[in-house]
Amino acid sequence: MGDLKLIGKFAVADGFWGRYVRLVREVVLPYQENALNDRIEGAEKSHCIENFRMAAEKLRTGKCEGEFYGMVFQDSDVAKWLEGAAYSLARHEDAGLKRRCDEIIELIGRAQHGDGYLNTYFTVKEPDRRWTNLHEAHELYCAGHMIEAAVAYAECTGETKLLEIMCRMADHIYRHFIEEGAEGYPGHPEIELALMRLYRATGQDKYRELALHFIDVRGVNSDYFIQEKQRNNWSVWGGHPTDKEYAQNAEPVRMQRKAVGHAVRAVYLYTGMADAALETGDESLAEACRTLWNNITQCRMYVTGAIGSAYEGEAFTKDYHLPNDTAYAETCAAIGLIFFSNKMLYLERNGRYADVMERALYNCVLAGMQLDGTRFFYVNPLEALPGISGEAQTHRHALPVRPKWFACACCPPNVARLLSSLSEYAWHIDKDTLYSNLFVGGTLDVSEEFGGTVTLETAYPYDGRITYRFTPKEKAMDVRFAIRVPAWSRDTKICVNGAPAQQEMEVRNGYACLHGTFFEPTEVTVELDMSVRKVYANGRVAANTGKAAVERGPLVYCAEGTDNNDDVLSLYYKRGGSIAVGEYLPDKLCGIRELYAEGYREKGSSDLYSYETPAAEPCRITLIPYYTWGNRGLNQMRVWIPEK
Amino acid sequence: MGDLKLIGKFAVADGFWGRYVRLVREVVLPYQENALNDRIEGAEKSHCIENFRMAAEKLRTGKCEGEFYGMVFQDSDVAKWLEGAAYSLARHEDAGLKRRCDEIIELIGRAQHGDGYLNTYFTVKEPDRRWTNLHEAHELYCAGHMIEAAVAYAECTGETKLLEIMCRMADHIYRHFIEEGAEGYPGHPEIELALMRLYRATGQDKYRELALHFIDVRGVNSDYFIQEKQRNNWSVWGGHPTDKEYAQNAEPVRMQRKAVGHAVRAVYLYTGMADAALETGDESLAEACRTLWNNITQCRMYVTGAIGSAYEGEAFTKDYHLPNDTAYAETCAAIGLIFFSNKMLYLERNGRYADVMERALYNCVLAGMQLDGTRFFYVNPLEALPGISGEAQTHRHALPVRPKWFACACCPPNVARLLSSLSEYAWHIDKDTLYSNLFVGGTLDVSEEFGGTVTLETAYPYDGRITYRFTPKEKAMDVRFAIRVPAWSRDTKICVNGAPAQQEMEVRNGYACLHGTFFEPTEVTVELDMSVRKVYANGRVAANTGKAAVERGPLVYCAEGTDNNDDVLSLYYKRGGSIAVGEYLPDKLCGIRELYAEGYREKGSSDLYSYETPAAEPCRITLIPYYTWGNRGLNQMRVWIPEK
Repeated sequence: MGDLKLIGKFAVADGFWGRYVRLVREVVLPYQENALNDRIEGAEKSHCIENFRMAAEKLRTGKCEGEFYGMVFQDSDVAKWLEGAAYSLARHEDAGLKRRCDEIIELIGRAQHGDGYLNTYFTVKEPDRRWTNLHEAHELYCAGHMIEAAVAYAECTGETKLLEIMCRMADHIYRHFIEEGAEGYPGHPEIELALMRLYRATGQDKYRELALHFIDVRGVNSDYFIQEKQRNNWSVWGGHPTDKEYAQNAEPVRMQRKAVGHAVRAVYLYTGMADAALETGDESLAEACRTLWNNITQCRMYVTGAIGSAYEGEAFTKDYHLPNDTAYAETCAAIGLIFFSNKMLYLERNGRYADVMERALYNCVLAGMQLDGTRFFYVNPLEALPGISGEAQTHRHALPVRPKWFACACCPPNVARLLSSLSEYAWHIDKDTLYSNLFVGGTLDVSEEFGGTVTLETAYPYDGRITYRFTPKEKAMDVRFAIRVPAWSRDTKICVNGAPAQQEMEVRNGYACLHGTFFEPTEVTVELDMSVRKVYANGRVAANTGKAAVERGPLVYCAEGTDNNDDVLSLYYKRGGSIAVGEYLPDKLCGIRELYAEGYREKGSSDLYSYETPAAEPCRITLIPYYTWGNRGLNQMRVWIPEK
Repeated sequence: MGDLKLIGKFAVADGFWGRYVRLVREVVLPYQENALNDRIEGAEKSHCIENFRMAAEKLRTGKCEGEFYGMVFQDSDVAKWLEGAAYSLARHEDAGLKRRCDEIIELIGRAQHGDGYLNTYFTVKEPDRRWTNLHEAHELYCAGHMIEAAVAYAECTGETKLLEIMCRMADHIYRHFIEEGAEGYPGHPEIELALMRLYRATGQDKYRELALHFIDVRGVNSDYFIQEKQRNNWSVWGGHPTDKEYAQNAEPVRMQRKAVGHAVRAVYLYTGMADAALETGDESLAEACRTLWNNITQCRMYVTGAIGSAYEGEAFTKDYHLPNDTAYAETCAAIGLIFFSNKMLYLERNGRYADVMERALYNCVLAGMQLDGTRFFYVNPLEALPGISGEAQTHRHALPVRPKWFACACCPPNVARLLSSLSEYAWHIDKDTLYSNLFVGGTLDVSEEFGGTVTLETAYPYDGRITYRFTPKEKAMDVRFAIRVPAWSRDTKICVNGAPAQQEMEVRNGYACLHGTFFEPTEVTVELDMSVRKVYANGRVAANTGKAAVERGPLVYCAEGTDNNDDVLSLYYKRGGSIAVGEYLPDKLCGIRELYAEGYREKGSSDLYSYETPAAEPCRITLIPYYTWGNRGLNQMRVWIPEK
């Protein structure tokens, strides 16, 4: 079995995700291809492809014109884009895209040294400094992303050229760190999870061994980055090797109990750890993963599934510190939390992992992209204050509207590769069971495993009715089928061909399990409880005391100024007040349901401080899904609203 | 008339301020003297006095051993301490202190160059770089503080040696910037207000001219710091001359409409501007001061009178951005706001300036010092969260307990010099009127002006009864007397010898004015309305929506964990609920009254997010005055508490 289990077998076909998959294919991937080639006017320059051309030229002729441009990890933008393109090609033929990908891969091949080494920053700019600054230089990170792209491209298109290139690079890394015994571990984890994928795609044990090596040595010598700096004395951007939390190397990974430091680094590391634990059965590693996942989701995660409370270090901070307006809440970090949760779900069949995956996907990740697919948020605050957000010294990062592209362009292609590979998260086939984790409409071909197809039809996330249609191919379908029942669904009905299923009573660990042998086409319908829910944060979250948020289905809602007289800060929910669910509005914000909450608008004094009790007028608060905020210009926005 | 109008005439003698004046004399000044001489174990080294010794040695012999140590503005710590000591000597003879001060002044004199130049950083470390980095190097700032000390020492002790030293330095500055026409203005304002003091103390017009020069040229060439950097190309600490808001030089001062940048720089500048406007009658300057004062107090000031919302740049941010837990709220900035307000009060007789002065004094400034006078807050947050405050990357500055001393030790001596010169703020004699601005108990000798003394007796700030006793000296006292009636006192009673004064009806611009000719000792009593008040912030202050603060008299109250089951975050005020006033507790926190507010404690789920409505139990919330917080170890603290 390859690394990608279902991508070729599932055709997304629903209104909600269909639109996104199409958007990725028709807008996001072409837009990003243009960006990587520096063809977008007014956007930050990328220079990614040009860096590869220069590296190839230098290898061919011994020199090249011009200078490397961009971040030290600029190569990874090409890798993530290629990975997204590969997923798209898996389900949608596009000879032009395929040809252009092949050309880029050809170029990448020409930028590879004879010994397998591949990294344009070092080839062009620092040819004598390979492997001398693991702390900052992102060589293993870039290799990891290109390995992921290689695995994806091989499995989605059958073309193995990039896979061969990256096996040579992985072999080079193996020689350096294992055979030659070089010390160290990456400043930015990623290689670990990538090598696990490469191992599964190729079956080669050495890649697994190399992944485990990087996991096992991390933090054992917690001074490694300091020693490296003393020894080699060069810096890419003046990073502080003494900050051991930043790159999760203060302790060996099995001893780590709190999610600390740079949030993306953290969840990429944990994803690799969980995958390794899954592969090896290493219980101490699995236990560390559970502890860290619990710490994130019980103490350090926003209600939108976002993580990273501080701009400083793009990092986790402390338990229960979850400021709304200054949140870092990077799109990439929420995507990494989805990767981590997806691996945890393989490690331990419990719906809570899928619940978090869904929370991060439908809220933080989707908010990371403008509805038209052309602008992106790096940072996803839970409160936007025009005049302050994006402007105050403390809020420079927390932009209230999405910019076109970033000098550090990690998030846009990360969104593209996630949305074009949803099948890997929506469905699992594990041992003898088919799991439906996320409710993405479309048809999954499981002829090989279960003798037929299953089609999911739904208007989710705006409607709670989900229909699975099992169609036997030749004879009967024999299926163990596990449907995730979200923890938020307090009253879930499951029917088989219209009759209540006995099994609905047996929701275990967040899944309702059915075992059926279907000779005829069979329908399983699930009715999730789509009641609107008020959410309360733990009393230790200082930013949210006295406040409530609102959810319906998997969606977190928010209030935006434009729907609420341009003043969201004076709104209060009425405790116990009703919240009405609006009609589906196909033309508003690409199709949403609004919510209308009973509340008050307080009119206080115009003085900065006043002794007059503000007057409260009853009002109706209009709420929109959080993922649609910031699509209508500069606007106040609030997820957590005081309740009286 | 000298610069100091009343310091020699007023003897503080009340329980509240008497304790502080004694503390400054017996603990704060000796403690700081030890600190300046590096005699405190475990505290940051100061090296201040040693720097002067080295400079003197170098001037005498052409060289010195050792290196300059400390901030580029380290000299100013000596200056502020000397100024505080001078004020203390004005009312309290202390031959030892006087002798030690004289010795330091003698040392300072020996560190002065023949041309009048005085600055140990430049003398010891950068002898060839005088006046080449006005942006960062604080030469004019240090000169300003030493001028203030000189004026104070001369007026309080009659010794003019330091005044002569500083006149020579001021003459040197005059030659450089006026006669030789050097361009530029100080990166850190202070010289302006100091030169106005020097002008009034000496009567020399050139000092006034020099003060006005620095005010007038500021921001006219807004690129000055950039050009200076290009021309001279050296840096003290890598400051950014392109950030024109930081040092208030983006525009000429008369065009500035918003209080921006480093908060201490801002209010020191505005103080000098207000003093200059007062002296010259320049209405455009007065109008700029009013605009800036209004912007601060109507949009950018904490309820405690603190200013500066961001650690980044120790700065103002944007209107209505007033975060509680990450506030910068520097003690020095609140002191500067008192300086500014005091000058505004001379410029325009309106009680609102005294109201702000009182707010900043009784809340932010007093909170800056531990009750025993040995530890200090630089930063005065309005919410302390143990585990986060002082620990999270975003809260490193917002310590929850006071440290001993600081590498940058500007705040402790600033508190000392303010508290030992309270008479200058409490009382004004202006034209033919005696103003009582702040209610500090003691006896003021106004024989010269009005033919007698006035004694103020009160248990303020815990009691609202204030008694003024006028005692004619030889014949009658003829007094125009204006008593500030705080805006928060909604029902104020004024009696003369027990009979209601007619004038109580005529509170104009925040002052009740009486004109009396007293042949016999006469008592004027004022009863301020000490009802407890709930305060509401403007609806645009996102951090305080749904919340209330509590005040009584001039004091802002807060809840601390130790009085409230170690959990302040779960407390809610009941809207319209009663708040009881406790007995005066002489042994608690050096004497306070607690308040007991009707409220609720909410018990929510232990999950990070929950759909259960938290259960609310009625409870009594114990409140203590904000200035006493952080005196009982690590503790939750909250000023703004949600109200339901």
